[in-house]
Amino acid sequence: MSDLIEKRQSSTKIYSGRLLHVFKDDVELPNGHVTTREYIKHPGAAVMIPVLPDGDIMLIKQFRYPIGMTHIELPAGKLDPGESHLETAKRELEEEIGYKSNKLTELTEIHPCTGYSDEKMWIYLAEDLEKTQSNMDHDEFIELFPVSLEKAITMVWSGEISDVKTIIGLLWGNRILSS
Amino acid sequence: MSDLIEKRQSSTKIYSGRLLHVFKDDVELPNGHVTTREYIKHPGAAVMIPVLPDGDIMLIKQFRYPIGMTHIELPAGKLDPGESHLETAKRELEEEIGYKSNKLTELTEIHPCTGYSDEKMWIYLAEDLEKTQSNMDHDEFIELFPVSLEKAITMVWSGEISDVKTIIGLLWGNRILSS
Repeated sequence: MSDLIEKRQSSTKIYSGRLLHVFKDDVELPNGHVTTREYIKHPGAAVMIPVLPDGDIMLIKQFRYPIGMTHIELPAGKLDPGESHLETAKRELEEEIGYKSNKLTELTEIHPCTGYSDEKMWIYLAEDLEKTQSNMDHDEFIELFPVSLEKAITMVWSGEISDVKTIIGLLWGNRILSS
Repeated sequence: MSDLIEKRQSSTKIYSGRLLHVFKDDVELPNGHVTTREYIKHPGAAVMIPVLPDGDIMLIKQFRYPIGMTHIELPAGKLDPGESHLETAKRELEEEIGYKSNKLTELTEIHPCTGYSDEKMWIYLAEDLEKTQSNMDHDEFIELFPVSLEKAITMVWSGEISDVKTIIGLLWGNRILSS
């Protein structure tokens, strides 16, 4: 597949904000032509499938400003500098839903946005949960939404859940948990 | 869920490139605090699950510069200005794999990147395919990769396919086609 590769010639940081870091690179295409590629550099994120003591899955409702909608999602969060994705999974689980997990299992890695972002997401099954307390960020607004796995899967196939990490996490979790 | 809503106060275009259009808005949080939200405006995209006359699924291999990897994906493409997602599905199918479909069925809509992009993707099952000719963009490099649906699903669960639209499209297609 080496004849598909695009080679970096130069890279320029176009914008660096609080969240977004935008780059524009000159790249050489396989036919020798030169073009530009614009993309976001992202630290990556961990996504957790929290299995509550009664077997329900803890989903959350969160307003997503770019699409102007409240979304039903699995808890997730960005890697802090120097943090491993396992550490992020532990931290974000407690911050967002107020539980710690004594059994975190990495299921897979996904790329949500290969056209214009280098973001990678690691999906974890979070079992053996223990209630602590929610350490939600001061300006983070989240509503807890526990549902049965069966109901969650119904919401995937009905289109009610349209967030990609949540669709994939739930289908993956269902495959593991129902086998 | 109205108590989760964030209200726009102002919006500024930070960067407008060939592909990326970056905005920074001031928004009012549910607690009255004001913060900023940075995000990409995207025209949306159509994703196609092409079922070849022999039953195989036509996947493609494409180098994805932001992640520096050649990825196995379903054919897909961005909406052109004024184009419906159905028109995009027809156009991109022919451009990328050289087939037209006489039976395009919309399966679902997904949001790949709700944290920092308004992108929406429409997934289509593309059946009753007819060979025309590939009208690939001059500087687009794609390798065709036809596989059985069974093999494609194996590649999802093994992690070999990590692109979200492709994972969701294949699992959705499998649910429809094998029922």
